[in-house]
Amino acid sequence: MAAQGSYKFEGWLGKSPDAINGKMEWGAFEPKKWTEDDVDIEISHCGICGSDLHMLKSGWGPTPYPCVVGHEIVGKAVRVGANVKHVKVGDRVGVGAQAKTCQKSTCPECSNGLETYCREGLINTYGSIYPDGEGKSYGGYADYNRTNGHWVFKIPDELDSALVAPMMCGGITMYSPLKQNGCGPGKTVGIIGVGGLGHFGILFAKALGADRVIGISRKADKREDALKLGADEYIATDEEKDWVKKHQRRMDLIISTVSHSKMPLNDYLALLKVRGTLIQVGAPDGGELPAVNAFQLISNGAKLGGSATGSPWEIREMLQLAADKKIKPWVQERPLKEANQAVIDMEEGKARYRYVLVNENFGKH
Amino acid sequence: MAAQGSYKFEGWLGKSPDAINGKMEWGAFEPKKWTEDDVDIEISHCGICGSDLHMLKSGWGPTPYPCVVGHEIVGKAVRVGANVKHVKVGDRVGVGAQAKTCQKSTCPECSNGLETYCREGLINTYGSIYPDGEGKSYGGYADYNRTNGHWVFKIPDELDSALVAPMMCGGITMYSPLKQNGCGPGKTVGIIGVGGLGHFGILFAKALGADRVIGISRKADKREDALKLGADEYIATDEEKDWVKKHQRRMDLIISTVSHSKMPLNDYLALLKVRGTLIQVGAPDGGELPAVNAFQLISNGAKLGGSATGSPWEIREMLQLAADKKIKPWVQERPLKEANQAVIDMEEGKARYRYVLVNENFGKH
Repeated sequence: MAAQGSYKFEGWLGKSPDAINGKMEWGAFEPKKWTEDDVDIEISHCGICGSDLHMLKSGWGPTPYPCVVGHEIVGKAVRVGANVKHVKVGDRVGVGAQAKTCQKSTCPECSNGLETYCREGLINTYGSIYPDGEGKSYGGYADYNRTNGHWVFKIPDELDSALVAPMMCGGITMYSPLKQNGCGPGKTVGIIGVGGLGHFGILFAKALGADRVIGISRKADKREDALKLGADEYIATDEEKDWVKKHQRRMDLIISTVSHSKMPLNDYLALLKVRGTLIQVGAPDGGELPAVNAFQLISNGAKLGGSATGSPWEIREMLQLAADKKIKPWVQERPLKEANQAVIDMEEGKARYRYVLVNENFGKH
Repeated sequence: MAAQGSYKFEGWLGKSPDAINGKMEWGAFEPKKWTEDDVDIEISHCGICGSDLHMLKSGWGPTPYPCVVGHEIVGKAVRVGANVKHVKVGDRVGVGAQAKTCQKSTCPECSNGLETYCREGLINTYGSIYPDGEGKSYGGYADYNRTNGHWVFKIPDELDSALVAPMMCGGITMYSPLKQNGCGPGKTVGIIGVGGLGHFGILFAKALGADRVIGISRKADKREDALKLGADEYIATDEEKDWVKKHQRRMDLIISTVSHSKMPLNDYLALLKVRGTLIQVGAPDGGELPAVNAFQLISNGAKLGGSATGSPWEIREMLQLAADKKIKPWVQERPLKEANQAVIDMEEGKARYRYVLVNENFGKH
């Protein structure tokens, strides 16, 4: 059991929806009350995820300001609770979108490798209120983070900190539905949207051994990147006439990262082979997807599903796969002190394909 | 190879959308041109399926009148093409919703046990036009039927003709998605809608060994029937306050037979356990389902799918299961000569739960 060191918790505080407009303010915050199940992390890197922007501006419901966002955290364990056995002080560790789950043996999700979907005790890495007055969760645009050990992962030595940070949410969001739905040899896999999530989709679909990975986006301007990332093929739906007819029933599995409420969802479903699956990981504002036509589902026995990040065992699997296959996400490093500008640039869609904030104090490893 | 006998093809002809209003007319029709892949059947029984009503009134697109509907056919093989090896003259046989598929070794569906979804050569049992001038397909409200042998099935001796007829479409429509999605011991299965399809859902879910089968309908008036059919439990959504909250995440699999365009689809999805599946087999007019909320799918990793009847191997499996488990659908026999009145009663929702037309000429077996 490590005693608390001399460090204090400071980070970029969002204090109102205006925070998204370059108005986060650096300051101190009170982490959740320490327990012997927790780990304190000195943060070296934190990816910028689309969810951060939604939370800063109260886009998915009211945010309990002040907040510190960021759930693609990498750093060094500086204090490890007595009940945490798989991490020791000094280890390089990562944290994703979850900070705590109930872990009860009676929880149908926690007891079954589905912790991400825990209904009783899920605490997100930022913006959640702990029960019993333990405080609030604060994310990774900060010097330090405190997270329950169940959701703290040792990072394999082979992986660069800046490259592994965005895997903690963006990466696992794509890896889990690929793995769960049979991506592998013999399969043709479509990835809709070539952005922060989609670029992980191409990387992991190839790493999992899919025969053919097809990047799908509206315009042709992502073609070159998609092919460089490893896609075998690219469909620009705005520019390829008759793309639905030409590519119908070609794909075993599609992961859609698109979140436009007017996306051509029935057309995407038509690309599936009989009994194929399309997993939606993007969500429009309000969440409402375009209406699905029953005949589209019935006529090819297709399925439309959803998926939320991934469980600890899947995160460990993903990290090992990334190490073994030398997966290199496309990351642009930004200084933590310029977090406000990085958020603005992210909101404007400039990232190619993931920004990672580097903590000037602890980022050299 | 049997020569054509002295029989002629006569049946209840729909000549316009008005046929649905008691206006079918008895008369002769020209069956498809005979080939040595075909079987002629002297029809003893034919179930009345909801699809028949849609076809009679051009509800799912324009019908090529004159039509003879009916695709839950049982009768005696009276002529068997030389290329058909699994049926002989005199056998009691059944025909469902399909009359022919391409059967090419290069067809991704026909070569893979997914004939129902054949894109190149699917001919429905009625209302389809054969290629190459072979004529049109006519269904089972008739004395005789001609169907490609691949879609003609020997009926196990244990099964009563009147009871097996509605299994050929209504039964397989429920059996296939139950089987394909893991209905069996350990599973809790919901069946939405207790009608012609739903009653088969309860029967087959129990026969496949589901631990718990839950009938779900709006009103309480089907409760007693659902329990008699074998359901362990019944939810009347109009009458049970907080039914969504009370029953959320209880079911591994749900088959929905409902076709109201305003059904509470997101609430139904909330009943699924994490990574559960809801299969829609009903289709509203026009097919458009209520908009699904992405957060509903993402928050429990659920899937919404569709399913169309079932392939020959599944039909054979279902028939054997029905024989082994002594499955007794609830059937009301109606004389073929009163088909017009039976159609009117079916349209009014009076069937409990399936009408079967009995051919006065050939119905005694």
